[in-house]
Amino acid sequence: MEDYQKEVDEWFKEQHWDYWEPLAITTRLFEEGGEFARLVNHVYGPKKKKLDEHVQDMEEEIGDIIYTLICFANSHGINLDAAIRKSLDKVVTRDKDRFTK
Amino acid sequence: MEDYQKEVDEWFKEQHWDYWEPLAITTRLFEEGGEFARLVNHVYGPKKKKLDEHVQDMEEEIGDIIYTLICFANSHGINLDAAIRKSLDKVVTRDKDRFTK
Amino acid sequence: MEDYQKEVDEWFKEQHWDYWEPLAITTRLFEEGGEFARLVNHVYGPKKKKLDEHVQDMEEEIGDIIYTLICFANSHGINLDAAIRKSLDKVVTRDKDRFTK
Amino acid sequence: MEDYQKEVDEWFKEQHWDYWEPLAITTRLFEEGGEFARLVNHVYGPKKKKLDEHVQDMEEEIGDIIYTLICFANSHGINLDAAIRKSLDKVVTRDKDRFTK
Repeated sequence: MEDYQKEVDEWFKEQHWDYWEPLAITTRLFEEGGEFARLVNHVYGPKKKKLDEHVQDMEEEIGDIIYTLICFANSHGINLDAAIRKSLDKVVTRDKDRFTK
Repeated sequence: MEDYQKEVDEWFKEQHWDYWEPLAITTRLFEEGGEFARLVNHVYGPKKKKLDEHVQDMEEEIGDIIYTLICFANSHGINLDAAIRKSLDKVVTRDKDRFTK
Repeated sequence: MEDYQKEVDEWFKEQHWDYWEPLAITTRLFEEGGEFARLVNHVYGPKKKKLDEHVQDMEEEIGDIIYTLICFANSHGINLDAAIRKSLDKVVTRDKDRFTK
Repeated sequence: MEDYQKEVDEWFKEQHWDYWEPLAITTRLFEEGGEFARLVNHVYGPKKKKLDEHVQDMEEEIGDIIYTLICFANSHGINLDAAIRKSLDKVVTRDKDRFTK
């Protein structure tokens, strides 16, 4: 993720853009998450559609969510690789606990 | 809210519709919330727009969220008046506690 | 809903509270929606739990979502009864169209 | 992201876990997004708190969101690097269009 974070950061600097304020980025995350939700409901909800026509759109929505998170992370000096590492370790550890008990 | 809940319920019965399954309604709530978020960001986010052109749209998005909640409530036998009552009382009580301490 | 809106409004005036800014209320809506989502996943997700132990909690989460919407509506002069009316009419109309075509 | 996706996939296989169904993952995304929103409101909302005490928690919430997306992507054969690439290119292209007009 480091390369993506750098790329976005350089792009923002080049364009003299500021990152949005945190509440606006969070609202944007809600919006992007909502678009993803619409798509999932469209395919898997009450009136099921064929998945393969929509995998590309899903890819796009997920990309937009992660881009939003990159913007937030960059404006807070958060290293996303470290963030992901921690979450993965949590899953593994949580599970190990469960099995040793 | 009782009248609205009844109206929706009668309408669903008349049309022989089933309420969606809970995970699909929740995904729908995410979607509707996301549309509301987009509108709020559009008006109050980085590139501010005039509010008065969008109040009608906001009304509509909020209505859709509440409609989604009515569907969930109806499919779970939840009385929305009781639900709202409880939340309002919480605010009042929480506050009273704060002032008497 | 008119009575609930008035009650909240009077309470805020009495306490000399201001409504939060729109982006903060939207972020709050995301938070409250997320709590509702957690509960739904807890009951209907991969490790199903008994519903009846959690209907009360669901009622509470839905109440909190609607309370958040009341705050937003009040700070924007939105009449929630009109908002709900419009959404219900949309469902009915959408459906009628479908059947007459 | 490829390495993270592989790692999660191998872990799930080793544990004989199935990925959750799409509506449950989406509901989970709502939940994780909501936890992130709570934290942002806590720091930047009406009653501002000091940021530096909470950057670690933010990192954690963002990691959890991305982990949720990894699970969804893995269960749909979506390559997250391609997804991110596409979103970044969109930002760049969108911007170029704006300046050439």
